[in-house]
Amino acid sequence: MWQVTEQNVESIAIGAGILGTGGGGNPYIGQLRARQALKERGPVTVLDPQELPEDSLVVCVGGIGAPTVGIEKMRDYQSYYALKAIEEYTGQRATALISNEIGGSNSVEPLIPAAMSGLPVVDADGMGRAFPQFQMKTFFVYGVPCCPIAICDEKGNTVIIPQTVTPLWAERLARACTVQMGCVACYAVAPMTAHQVRTTAVLNTLSLARSLGDAVKQARLRGDDPVDAILNTCPGKVLFSGKIAELERHTTEGFARGQVSIEGLGINAGEKMLVEFQNENLIARRDGQIVCTVPDLICAVDSESGEPITTELLRYGFRVTILGFPAPKLWTTPEGLAVAGPRVFGYPMDYTPLKL
Amino acid sequence: MWQVTEQNVESIAIGAGILGTGGGGNPYIGQLRARQALKERGPVTVLDPQELPEDSLVVCVGGIGAPTVGIEKMRDYQSYYALKAIEEYTGQRATALISNEIGGSNSVEPLIPAAMSGLPVVDADGMGRAFPQFQMKTFFVYGVPCCPIAICDEKGNTVIIPQTVTPLWAERLARACTVQMGCVACYAVAPMTAHQVRTTAVLNTLSLARSLGDAVKQARLRGDDPVDAILNTCPGKVLFSGKIAELERHTTEGFARGQVSIEGLGINAGEKMLVEFQNENLIARRDGQIVCTVPDLICAVDSESGEPITTELLRYGFRVTILGFPAPKLWTTPEGLAVAGPRVFGYPMDYTPLKL
Repeated sequence: MWQVTEQNVESIAIGAGILGTGGGGNPYIGQLRARQALKERGPVTVLDPQELPEDSLVVCVGGIGAPTVGIEKMRDYQSYYALKAIEEYTGQRATALISNEIGGSNSVEPLIPAAMSGLPVVDADGMGRAFPQFQMKTFFVYGVPCCPIAICDEKGNTVIIPQTVTPLWAERLARACTVQMGCVACYAVAPMTAHQVRTTAVLNTLSLARSLGDAVKQARLRGDDPVDAILNTCPGKVLFSGKIAELERHTTEGFARGQVSIEGLGINAGEKMLVEFQNENLIARRDGQIVCTVPDLICAVDSESGEPITTELLRYGFRVTILGFPAPKLWTTPEGLAVAGPRVFGYPMDYTPLKL
Repeated sequence: MWQVTEQNVESIAIGAGILGTGGGGNPYIGQLRARQALKERGPVTVLDPQELPEDSLVVCVGGIGAPTVGIEKMRDYQSYYALKAIEEYTGQRATALISNEIGGSNSVEPLIPAAMSGLPVVDADGMGRAFPQFQMKTFFVYGVPCCPIAICDEKGNTVIIPQTVTPLWAERLARACTVQMGCVACYAVAPMTAHQVRTTAVLNTLSLARSLGDAVKQARLRGDDPVDAILNTCPGKVLFSGKIAELERHTTEGFARGQVSIEGLGINAGEKMLVEFQNENLIARRDGQIVCTVPDLICAVDSESGEPITTELLRYGFRVTILGFPAPKLWTTPEGLAVAGPRVFGYPMDYTPLKL
């Protein structure tokens, strides 16, 4: 058990910005919003999944939409509205909240309704990274029903999806509503039990995000290499280092899609890396050779500061280091790959685990 | 009080096909589906609004989508699913059903869940014609809340819209879900009281549709002019008579949109009529002069048989008579015109009532 405070929320946002593999919403805006809520309502308790009371009702809350829109049309209290809407619909009061993904602003999104409702959050999430689509959660892969869902915008519109034939249908309907709501909305899913959280969530990811963020901040203070600090905290590898030379990004069907081309510097001089993304980075090619694919994590950080660079922030000229991290084990099973493997995103290849 | 039977449902479909001003879904398919339900479950009682018990709970059910898609992807029991979904959501059992619009298949859509549930239908509807958008109902213009709504597809997906800031937002969200559901879905709106029906619905339109259909069928049997029979039953006028010379129709954003150009025959020889539509016919121009606009009714019928020709059936070479009927009074008030007047559809003009 620990507390998220005004002071340490920045570390979580930095760490989740890295783990978010380019997506999950802008970490800086998420951090500012969460910090405001923590300032007004006080710290939020983080419970280890093992500390959850057996009769817990854990509601997953998160943002949905295009990160490119989210930096212009910031979220407000939609996740709180969504929490209240799902509580009203199910007739069950949440006893704890959980992040849908440990990425960008979504990692800290539950802190806002948690602070407003006096609820704890669970040290875990539904992806162990970020993914672009609603159904891509370990919860649903391992048997938690994906419905009912409540979706709210900032204006006062609410949609409930009580049942769908598959989790992908929940994504389709939720996405269509989100696009109408202005490409930025929040949702809450019907409560899970403590047992469901322990067996289907990616565990202790909020702690991991905080540790990553702490490591980056300490490295900056000490003048150490923040990239080394990241890799010392979370096992992974440098895939590429260079300068952004080209960027193609468009907001379509409620997603930020595109690709970024990076010219190598230092040991990568003369080489080129191409990273394709749909909100999140999906595949990295070095000189045409695939070096990392979903569900493994492909993360862009500023080479100097270690600051995560999410896909909506990519810009010509940035000096970036592309890091690769192995996917959480729940994603590398046949069931996991069927929901979030390379083929799901249209790449005609099997998943080859990243070699460290 | 009267009964809709396998025998008289055809008359209702013909009459509603005329009153539907080109929209409301294909009347023939609607008729076949309703006839099947009546055959299996027996006749459905039609109650005059004045006969409704005071404690009635009247649920409006209807189809939503593009009529062009509806003739290829026919509806199934979605309106029954939607009725059950709204009953479950509100915790209230319907005691009667009402059509959302007296147009095409939508006029008979409530007969299917009514036959399946043993419920009566009310001799009234929410438009007194057909309109392309959900919020364009006299119910909502005159104070009935537009939410909650349940929307169902044939696959087993359900969406509930518990609240929106305006009725137009309900349309946007319902339409977006409908497009995902394959451009064909059905909905049910939370129950109205008997008083609400009597004060906000367009009354006795199911009887009017039946009378119109009976008149057309009798004229055909007797060899009389079915167009005369229509105008003797429902006061209106011939706007134009001719042959379809050009048709532009595309299915976009969940609607069938386009325009039809008609070359005059007989007294209209040498003249041209252009009718623009969005599911329903919106504006009629004779040689460039506007002769009829929404909310007045612009209806195309086969010049020989009096058979209504809805917008998804328009085809080059058809001999058609374009009829105009005055809009129900509930639409020609400032409140009514604000929701369904010419400006709402993008025409920069005030409503000029059709002169008979």
